[in-house]
Amino acid sequence: MLQTEKLYEGKAKILYQTKDPFILLSVYKDDATAFNAQKKGQIYGKGAINCNIAAALFEWLESFGIPTHYIDTPAPNQMRVKAVKIIPLEVVVRNIAAGSLCRQTGLPEGQVLPVPLVEYYLKNDQLGDPLLTRDRIFLLEIVTQEQLQEIEEIALKINQYLQDFFNRCEITLVDFKLEFGHDAEQKILLADEISPDTCRLWDQKESDPQARVMDKDRFRKDLGQIESAYQQVQARVLAQIEQIRNSTPQQ
Amino acid sequence: MLQTEKLYEGKAKILYQTKDPFILLSVYKDDATAFNAQKKGQIYGKGAINCNIAAALFEWLESFGIPTHYIDTPAPNQMRVKAVKIIPLEVVVRNIAAGSLCRQTGLPEGQVLPVPLVEYYLKNDQLGDPLLTRDRIFLLEIVTQEQLQEIEEIALKINQYLQDFFNRCEITLVDFKLEFGHDAEQKILLADEISPDTCRLWDQKESDPQARVMDKDRFRKDLGQIESAYQQVQARVLAQIEQIRNSTPQQ
Repeated sequence: MLQTEKLYEGKAKILYQTKDPFILLSVYKDDATAFNAQKKGQIYGKGAINCNIAAALFEWLESFGIPTHYIDTPAPNQMRVKAVKIIPLEVVVRNIAAGSLCRQTGLPEGQVLPVPLVEYYLKNDQLGDPLLTRDRIFLLEIVTQEQLQEIEEIALKINQYLQDFFNRCEITLVDFKLEFGHDAEQKILLADEISPDTCRLWDQKESDPQARVMDKDRFRKDLGQIESAYQQVQARVLAQIEQIRNSTPQQ
Repeated sequence: MLQTEKLYEGKAKILYQTKDPFILLSVYKDDATAFNAQKKGQIYGKGAINCNIAAALFEWLESFGIPTHYIDTPAPNQMRVKAVKIIPLEVVVRNIAAGSLCRQTGLPEGQVLPVPLVEYYLKNDQLGDPLLTRDRIFLLEIVTQEQLQEIEEIALKINQYLQDFFNRCEITLVDFKLEFGHDAEQKILLADEISPDTCRLWDQKESDPQARVMDKDRFRKDLGQIESAYQQVQARVLAQIEQIRNSTPQQ
């Protein structure tokens, strides 16, 4: 292990300091939580799977110039990341109505949105991660208007690249949650993870509304076969990365 | 009674058709509800008090050119109003942090906001009147961007006129909820009511955080002396209206 002191333990990862003050070690856990940690459990092998998937997707995004905190994966469930100060916003990009959007608006699950929707939630477990309007974001002085503009533009670009990637995997990217942070130079980097814990992913090979679910909704809704769904996402993502590598001319 | 058929019964008012299809009769009830009708009760005399206060405030706003649904009050708890199609938005204007804004953001109650905040909630009891972002308003096709712009401008003007009025009554207008509707010509009119049921009003003569409350929070928070608080608001509002009338040169 490369870590020294434990810096922060979240619901799905533990963050350790390393000898380099600009680098942290993120250890992905098998712990699963839902509904603001009211539901708790374990998804066997999830730590390594999510770390693998996130690493592949961070690399994919970096190849298009999206700045992320990702450095490398020294062990299957460990990711070295650039130290950032996390912005307390959960940035959710939605392509299809699902989850809290449906509960809060009455929109039917599965309705394709006319344009991708970028939404912001306050990253605050005690308050239950409430939805934020732009005015509330500025009132709470979380980011400036310019920073929010930058975050929204990056989030929409990420959505395009991830939609493209998951479509190649025959997976529909329904929605996903991003977190961003400021590095030492105040540059905004994509942080946290991108995985079946943070994305809604529907198998394009399945039409049944339950069978198609390949993400944490299997855990939230007690749909069973959670591990195999996560493994399936990993297998398709890694196969796709491999295919892209092989089709890219060597420089 | 001028009404014919009951059109709609809400939590605080009953709306009747009249012989004129463009005019409805709104009968104000003594019933009080809070927390999306989970708490129910009666505030003795509230119907007539709120009808009186709302009539005075609608007339005050009309005098500045704000279009409202108000016509007249044929009886103490009855208001004749122009028939409108209610826009399913609860438009909340906030000058000071209180209520759900504090619960959802952690802002301390009583914090003066740097600028008035206009917020929108979906008027839908079944969904619990959830907060709406602008994007969700357009996604649900509740109003167009132009209509929302118009509503926001009217709401901010109303805030200025009401703040001015309540300050003369030595009452601080903390926040309030408005509803708007379209008339037959698609013009946007202020509808519903403006009263201690729909405003947070703090007595400027009291500094104690409980003693100063002159609105439905006395009912919500079981602070007692609800009727006398409503009566006090009515007395000050009507005295102010009288004073304004007397100071206005007769034409």
